[in-house]
Amino acid sequence: MKCSTHLRDSVLVETSVYADKGCPSRKVLDRIGDTWSVMVVGSLADGPMRYTELARRISGVSPKMLTQTLRTLERDGLLTRTVHAVVPPRVDYELTGLGRSLLTLVDGLRLWAETHIDEVTEAQAAYDAR
Amino acid sequence: MKCSTHLRDSVLVETSVYADKGCPSRKVLDRIGDTWSVMVVGSLADGPMRYTELARRISGVSPKMLTQTLRTLERDGLLTRTVHAVVPPRVDYELTGLGRSLLTLVDGLRLWAETHIDEVTEAQAAYDAR
Repeated sequence: MKCSTHLRDSVLVETSVYADKGCPSRKVLDRIGDTWSVMVVGSLADGPMRYTELARRISGVSPKMLTQTLRTLERDGLLTRTVHAVVPPRVDYELTGLGRSLLTLVDGLRLWAETHIDEVTEAQAAYDAR
Repeated sequence: MKCSTHLRDSVLVETSVYADKGCPSRKVLDRIGDTWSVMVVGSLADGPMRYTELARRISGVSPKMLTQTLRTLERDGLLTRTVHAVVPPRVDYELTGLGRSLLTLVDGLRLWAETHIDEVTEAQAAYDAR
């Protein structure tokens, strides 16, 4: 598994994407695997949502963490934040094309978790009984 | 997106997997998206490895964090830890069938990161320039 930017620099340098913590792909990987990011992206699958709707759907997330996650995902180009000039003001969050391209992966993660929860639980019980 | 365990209890209760932080699937989701877990699983794709090989491949991970990640993944049934009775002792880590079932997802995450790194970088530059 190669760090794509390093490959462009030198085909002779075998650099694993795991070996270089400065590798930009690694930083993106950090982000897309983040649980709150996964949940925001998944929640927006069916269309735009307001902050309060997202906060309600994603239990356990603090307002500070949700705001930070939304800001980071917006900065990464995965969603847009639209302020509607109405009274009271309304702010919607919506996935971009780039964000939507993540949906299959996000759904895959969720599906794997749901499919294998029993196996994982059994393995944990066996481990704890050792 | 339903929490599978809640569906078994009551078909009338619509519980989103994102809404219930006690949902077991959610805890598994927390784990499989964890960057260090993703890296360990990805590193073991080609076969068993010793601790030192994993530590070398995954830069930035502290010994404590690597040990903790390996222990957690073993408890979850995603890998096995085998102690070989030789001198000096040798410990190998290897993916189980369950762990291997994650490889496609892990590879998908890595591939998405590498494919879209430029778009993400451009979006970040545009955001920072606002």
